[in-house]
Amino acid sequence: MAGNSIGQSFRVTTFGESHGEALGCIIDGMPSGIPITEDDIQSELNRRRPGSSHYTTKRRELDKIKILSGMFQGKTTGTPIGLLVKNEDHRSQDYNQIKDLFRPGHADYTYQKKYGFRDYRGGGRSSARETVMRVAAGAIAKKFLKIKYNIQICAYLSQMGDIVCDSKNLDFIDKNPFFCPDPDKLDSLDLLIRTLKKEKDSIGAKIRILVKNVPVGLGEPVFDRLDADLAHALMSINAVKAIEVGDGFAVINQKGSFHRDEIDKNGFKTNHSGGMLGGISTGQEIILNIAMKPTSSIQKPCNTIDRFGNEVKIITKGRHDPCVGIRAIPIAESMVAIVLMDHILRNYYYHENK
Amino acid sequence: MAGNSIGQSFRVTTFGESHGEALGCIIDGMPSGIPITEDDIQSELNRRRPGSSHYTTKRRELDKIKILSGMFQGKTTGTPIGLLVKNEDHRSQDYNQIKDLFRPGHADYTYQKKYGFRDYRGGGRSSARETVMRVAAGAIAKKFLKIKYNIQICAYLSQMGDIVCDSKNLDFIDKNPFFCPDPDKLDSLDLLIRTLKKEKDSIGAKIRILVKNVPVGLGEPVFDRLDADLAHALMSINAVKAIEVGDGFAVINQKGSFHRDEIDKNGFKTNHSGGMLGGISTGQEIILNIAMKPTSSIQKPCNTIDRFGNEVKIITKGRHDPCVGIRAIPIAESMVAIVLMDHILRNYYYHENK
Amino acid sequence: MAGNSIGQSFRVTTFGESHGEALGCIIDGMPSGIPITEDDIQSELNRRRPGSSHYTTKRRELDKIKILSGMFQGKTTGTPIGLLVKNEDHRSQDYNQIKDLFRPGHADYTYQKKYGFRDYRGGGRSSARETVMRVAAGAIAKKFLKIKYNIQICAYLSQMGDIVCDSKNLDFIDKNPFFCPDPDKLDSLDLLIRTLKKEKDSIGAKIRILVKNVPVGLGEPVFDRLDADLAHALMSINAVKAIEVGDGFAVINQKGSFHRDEIDKNGFKTNHSGGMLGGISTGQEIILNIAMKPTSSIQKPCNTIDRFGNEVKIITKGRHDPCVGIRAIPIAESMVAIVLMDHILRNYYYHENK
Amino acid sequence: MAGNSIGQSFRVTTFGESHGEALGCIIDGMPSGIPITEDDIQSELNRRRPGSSHYTTKRRELDKIKILSGMFQGKTTGTPIGLLVKNEDHRSQDYNQIKDLFRPGHADYTYQKKYGFRDYRGGGRSSARETVMRVAAGAIAKKFLKIKYNIQICAYLSQMGDIVCDSKNLDFIDKNPFFCPDPDKLDSLDLLIRTLKKEKDSIGAKIRILVKNVPVGLGEPVFDRLDADLAHALMSINAVKAIEVGDGFAVINQKGSFHRDEIDKNGFKTNHSGGMLGGISTGQEIILNIAMKPTSSIQKPCNTIDRFGNEVKIITKGRHDPCVGIRAIPIAESMVAIVLMDHILRNYYYHENK
Repeated sequence: MAGNSIGQSFRVTTFGESHGEALGCIIDGMPSGIPITEDDIQSELNRRRPGSSHYTTKRRELDKIKILSGMFQGKTTGTPIGLLVKNEDHRSQDYNQIKDLFRPGHADYTYQKKYGFRDYRGGGRSSARETVMRVAAGAIAKKFLKIKYNIQICAYLSQMGDIVCDSKNLDFIDKNPFFCPDPDKLDSLDLLIRTLKKEKDSIGAKIRILVKNVPVGLGEPVFDRLDADLAHALMSINAVKAIEVGDGFAVINQKGSFHRDEIDKNGFKTNHSGGMLGGISTGQEIILNIAMKPTSSIQKPCNTIDRFGNEVKIITKGRHDPCVGIRAIPIAESMVAIVLMDHILRNYYYHENK
Repeated sequence: MAGNSIGQSFRVTTFGESHGEALGCIIDGMPSGIPITEDDIQSELNRRRPGSSHYTTKRRELDKIKILSGMFQGKTTGTPIGLLVKNEDHRSQDYNQIKDLFRPGHADYTYQKKYGFRDYRGGGRSSARETVMRVAAGAIAKKFLKIKYNIQICAYLSQMGDIVCDSKNLDFIDKNPFFCPDPDKLDSLDLLIRTLKKEKDSIGAKIRILVKNVPVGLGEPVFDRLDADLAHALMSINAVKAIEVGDGFAVINQKGSFHRDEIDKNGFKTNHSGGMLGGISTGQEIILNIAMKPTSSIQKPCNTIDRFGNEVKIITKGRHDPCVGIRAIPIAESMVAIVLMDHILRNYYYHENK
Repeated sequence: MAGNSIGQSFRVTTFGESHGEALGCIIDGMPSGIPITEDDIQSELNRRRPGSSHYTTKRRELDKIKILSGMFQGKTTGTPIGLLVKNEDHRSQDYNQIKDLFRPGHADYTYQKKYGFRDYRGGGRSSARETVMRVAAGAIAKKFLKIKYNIQICAYLSQMGDIVCDSKNLDFIDKNPFFCPDPDKLDSLDLLIRTLKKEKDSIGAKIRILVKNVPVGLGEPVFDRLDADLAHALMSINAVKAIEVGDGFAVINQKGSFHRDEIDKNGFKTNHSGGMLGGISTGQEIILNIAMKPTSSIQKPCNTIDRFGNEVKIITKGRHDPCVGIRAIPIAESMVAIVLMDHILRNYYYHENK
Repeated sequence: MAGNSIGQSFRVTTFGESHGEALGCIIDGMPSGIPITEDDIQSELNRRRPGSSHYTTKRRELDKIKILSGMFQGKTTGTPIGLLVKNEDHRSQDYNQIKDLFRPGHADYTYQKKYGFRDYRGGGRSSARETVMRVAAGAIAKKFLKIKYNIQICAYLSQMGDIVCDSKNLDFIDKNPFFCPDPDKLDSLDLLIRTLKKEKDSIGAKIRILVKNVPVGLGEPVFDRLDADLAHALMSINAVKAIEVGDGFAVINQKGSFHRDEIDKNGFKTNHSGGMLGGISTGQEIILNIAMKPTSSIQKPCNTIDRFGNEVKIITKGRHDPCVGIRAIPIAESMVAIVLMDHILRNYYYHENK
């Protein structure tokens, strides 16, 4: 039944619904003595915050983080860290008219069928609002990874619809509301979002995630492999429908003589593997791609049924993102940070017995 | 450290190396009263067995399964099931010459760096031979799923190199050594394998997995979602580099009005989601794709280093598959069966409180 | 590292320190559709609340519970339940003078040595204040157990110092501040506490826990046995030093012909086992005893060292209970409730497949 | 459902029934590079082996251990270790006559009620024969603890019936079949066992467990405390009915000024706590006591019912120990070793970041 924890040595457990009182999480296993401030977390939350640009949902949430425990004199104590964000701008009345309807593409149907009862306000627990706490926990993991290992996790928008952003100007990513690394694509992206808004429609996206300075040796085969745990963590994000490691689906048409990454005295000569072999990090850059589906929360009417089986037309009101792929970028980074943090702690015996 | 278990309520733990004494597993959480025979398991093992056709490795292993516990009078007792397969045809001397070398594309490098020491014979634990026990455990899960829910899991080769097998003649899958659903593609596949053998090279593959009769309601959001657990289980298979659920990467260029699966009184009208919404099964067919990399175990020489850092040329001897994607098909089915079994048990409260 | 969760299907994770902002927990795995109110929890919290009588610590905390998630329209939704209690009356300045000292009998020494750094205010995480959230989570478990199975968990003070309370007038337990079942012992208990206060000393206690209406079949041998999980949960309470199941230590001098509980058509004729055989509940009353050590927080001076190794005299100020065994009673009940709840959910397949 | 694993970073999973083919286990999380031989395990197994003296059961089992994986060139590889012992001397026909009866004091009733079906031969999974694998896994943990930390775990018979063995001549323990530290009590013990055999009865026992050289800092509060995990592990042994840490039940009548262990520059002056404070090891000796019930497998007739509810007389045949407390001594040591091993690995970050 329980399913709201991730990680083993570094374990994140979250709670909270879209229109409930608050969102919160407990971070258990954080080492002591690490300096963390609310600002460290807030700055990451601000990156995914709704209402931060007109490309995303108009819901305005301050997402003000509060650290409730696990800290003393500015440093972590090794005890669990409790985090809280209050919900402010929840217009629950928007949802009364859909309380008995199943919005296509949403989890309304499956939650109703599983639990026999559901909080229909804004999708309840199935709302992407839940990811606030993923980002908050990820911020703490990122800080540790940065301080102790100089690990850098960077995700960006690599495709939206048919607009491919393949430049790798990583410095530009945080300087535009699309998290796009290619300055030349901003106009096209802007136009696409405007068009979708007019059409009351949405679009999918591809996100690329790169991780530098990963120590060699992370991952616990054969089931708790690093790649498997990353796949789990990324697929647990709402709207993710596909994951690639390294060359991903391109391997189908590759030959072994091409794909295997040869080695010389300077290290690996290529990185088709994406930084993991046998489920263990090689020390190279970790390379991942994910695909985000277009949000189903659009104002274009469609067909559905109510929970009594009657056919009805539905228009999803509320305030939503035309491309959830944009705001998913800090979320994807956070999930990667949480997994790496967990595996660093799990690997500590080997890390120190070198 | 520990990482060789998968599942929570139905938990599979495996051991064994390519050239060790034996491979084994413990299946913990199997309900009592289910009729299981060694033949149920053996027939699945035979599907992945090496040496079964000239399209796969020439290593000949009987893979004779032995049930050691958990059964009485032909039925499961609810206690853990111990399974054992002895290794027979291990020519360990093939590997002496590579004991200090890192075969590119293999886990030699990462195991050496992580553990400081490794069983170099045939890749040791990182060998695909480990998957024997995944298939054995999967056979038991499949039997339960079939008896109790009539769940049918079917995987097939949907692409090898650039040969796409898109016919869906599922009955044909088990009638050819490629697990290919399209009779018209057998000649091309045969030619491709022959060519690769001559070239001493290998090729990647795409596998499609379909699951029918899945009950609605499986999956425990937000982290132990069914899609996330499937991604974990599939990515834990050696050589898997990518996973798609439903429309997968195609969603990048889809609009929300297209992707969302509308509903009428007969149920969902389409299945772009691949049978899960919000991480919970919808009751529709589950649709998954995975990409398998080309094996690195080829006899074409390449560059590498030894564990002392010296540059050397290496030729991987031993007996290997030109396309590991073929034998991975029963393995993929097994991992899906194990995950579904686990989630059915985890969901039992709701299953029965309807 | 992570160690602040208990349970598998019903999992409780807590955070919070004695003098931090707040205490909180996440209850994951709670079935949907169960009516729960803040009053259900508050009434249990009030039973363990400090300042409720002059027999316990004078620290005054309202311990006002707030449910933050997992509820809708008065019923659980099946999603995680977030709970919060703010700390109000924390006089942290009481602790400045001991910030570098190790109070004998407390966890100051071990926290300092383990984490290299500690929140010294009131013991930080090692304070019994952490148990607020055990009681809150236990209240929710108790409600489910009561509604669905009519399970009744009752703990009482069975001994304090050499005062044995062996009457079993269970109705009287909640009518006196000692949770004592024997009206004739109140005067002695009162006198003992007064004497201890004068002596600036404390005393140990024995608590007996009885559980009625437990379904037969709970427990997952051989490691997740019900008795083993109960022992784990009870020993995790601060100050518990011993646990007995059924006849406990008396079995050392019992013969097999006496101890084994014979059966006739009306069921078991005796209950030496304490309601479990082979780690599985028999359906009889579960009988447990625990021993609580005398609190070390007393104002009698003693010898210790500071964290630099210098010998010093120490007097523990702050406000403390002369017998922590009194307030531990609702805590013990809660831990038993949490374990039973977890095992009921874990056993659901068998519960329903009868 | 699954319940046959113990430990998190060092995880032991077992299988096997009294009269099945074999007993086995998987040890997952064992660090690499540790020299282990089958003799290391065999010598521990021989200490608990049935038929080793006339004070224990006459069942004769060689309990010949076989290591199947996880080793290479005499050292552990970091991959899971598979262990196997075949059952040899199982006289299953002894049990045909009790196949429908519930032996009082055994788990027959609870297994039947839980699983609806049971392997009645020798108690099946509920037999103490299952503990062979606990001792095998414990032997491996002990070896690591000895080599890396010089940790020494010593258990002995401290009481049988009313014979108290309070001398602490630990060197004598392994020199007599009772694991008794007091040479003066051998005659009394011998006489008691002979008398019980004549009476066809059995007796309980108390075992004391001492652990030297435990590093300070082991244990993960607030639930995965070291004392709580030890209580769990010890209570999971068949026939254990009570556990004490340090002064145990004696604390009920102790005062705080007596119990708290004062500290001076040479360390703790006393050890009432039993080597743990706040659930974390202090570095002092760990002191534990457990009580073992008298075995119910005696040939004295008693009353029971069959699985159809009919009242019957039953005599338990088979070959059994008059005092299971004797053979439980190496088992208790093993469980403690497994828990310490797990906590050492879980604590590695702090161990190395000192």
